[in-house]
Amino acid sequence: MKLILLRHGQSEWNLENRFTGWTDVDLSDKGRQEAADAGRLLLEQGIRPAFYFTSYLKRAIHTLQIAAAVMDREWVPVCKDWHLNERHYGALQGLNKADTAKKYGDEQVHIWRRSYDTAPPALTENDQRHPKFDPRYASLTADELPAAESLEQTIERVRCCWEERIVPALRQYGDVLVVAHGNSLRGLVMMLQHLTPDEVTKLEIPTGTPWVFELDDRLAITGRSL
Amino acid sequence: MKLILLRHGQSEWNLENRFTGWTDVDLSDKGRQEAADAGRLLLEQGIRPAFYFTSYLKRAIHTLQIAAAVMDREWVPVCKDWHLNERHYGALQGLNKADTAKKYGDEQVHIWRRSYDTAPPALTENDQRHPKFDPRYASLTADELPAAESLEQTIERVRCCWEERIVPALRQYGDVLVVAHGNSLRGLVMMLQHLTPDEVTKLEIPTGTPWVFELDDRLAITGRSL
Repeated sequence: MKLILLRHGQSEWNLENRFTGWTDVDLSDKGRQEAADAGRLLLEQGIRPAFYFTSYLKRAIHTLQIAAAVMDREWVPVCKDWHLNERHYGALQGLNKADTAKKYGDEQVHIWRRSYDTAPPALTENDQRHPKFDPRYASLTADELPAAESLEQTIERVRCCWEERIVPALRQYGDVLVVAHGNSLRGLVMMLQHLTPDEVTKLEIPTGTPWVFELDDRLAITGRSL
Repeated sequence: MKLILLRHGQSEWNLENRFTGWTDVDLSDKGRQEAADAGRLLLEQGIRPAFYFTSYLKRAIHTLQIAAAVMDREWVPVCKDWHLNERHYGALQGLNKADTAKKYGDEQVHIWRRSYDTAPPALTENDQRHPKFDPRYASLTADELPAAESLEQTIERVRCCWEERIVPALRQYGDVLVVAHGNSLRGLVMMLQHLTPDEVTKLEIPTGTPWVFELDDRLAITGRSL
């Protein structure tokens, strides 16, 4: 079994240095190029995913669509799952990162961005950015709907998708491609490599660069192809 | 419940007047425009599909992707099913329709194109166009793999998808969009409207134009919005 992890290409807000989270911004031109390059690399390496996962956010969905087109494997089944969304950045979503650092101080912003268990300031219940106003999350329970998430909370919900959906797909289909986000992919790597909280906060996953883990029947890593 | 049927936009081979069938040709520029127009029309009419179906062929997959992007509903779950593919045109696939008429006579080509139960000449087992050489059909049984199909045979396999997948999705999700092909959509309309073979062979479904059927709990048509 091969698990291929791919972080979406550069988005328009990566370019503008803004906190994105669940905001549904599209890829930049560079991001679309990164997605095509990732598809070409997988094709050249002879990697043929038989099942796809992605999030509810278009920067991941488009990265998958572009890579799948380059691989000529657009017919492969896909599961879109909100559990693979980026970490919810709460009231910071939409703010410029440099402005936020000026307002709250570098140290506070560093904690929000890099601690394992501290969530950024939450959205209020009537903030129009709250996911309860977005139809795509209408089927989520009040407990599931985040107003802000720590990395720990993000990884807890990624675990649901891993256990209930990705592991069964690996066993059924063999080679599975997951196109998602920096923090949701950190969660998958934490589970695969049994990382500590300290290790996972230091883990940097580059955009548009597939990571390929070879797994045995017990989901232990037996090799890395890329 | 609403069932929305959408035939893919114009393909490159529609332009070249060639028999296409299971050949995986892409949309033309006009086809991409038709897909965007279909998405805009559904959006304007307030139709919000909550589940998508499409075939294994990129002219349908791309039509769906373009329409879903215009509707800003790219996160909606999708099921790709080979049962929704176009009719398999056998040994005619790739041939120019006018050339074929010159070679076999207008009457014979008319029978192949318009009869209910006559299949065109079958592909031989070692013809590289045979679907057994295409990895996307590797999981099909020898009985399922067509070398040529009549309209009747096409509709028989569309019925599997209707009964096992589309009807359950209608009951679970309410409004379902199916993006497919002239002959597979004929099959769905035949089942919905209880058409005779003679009626279904005369039914013409235009490209890029959504048909919206309102259904009651027994799947009887109670109205047409478009």
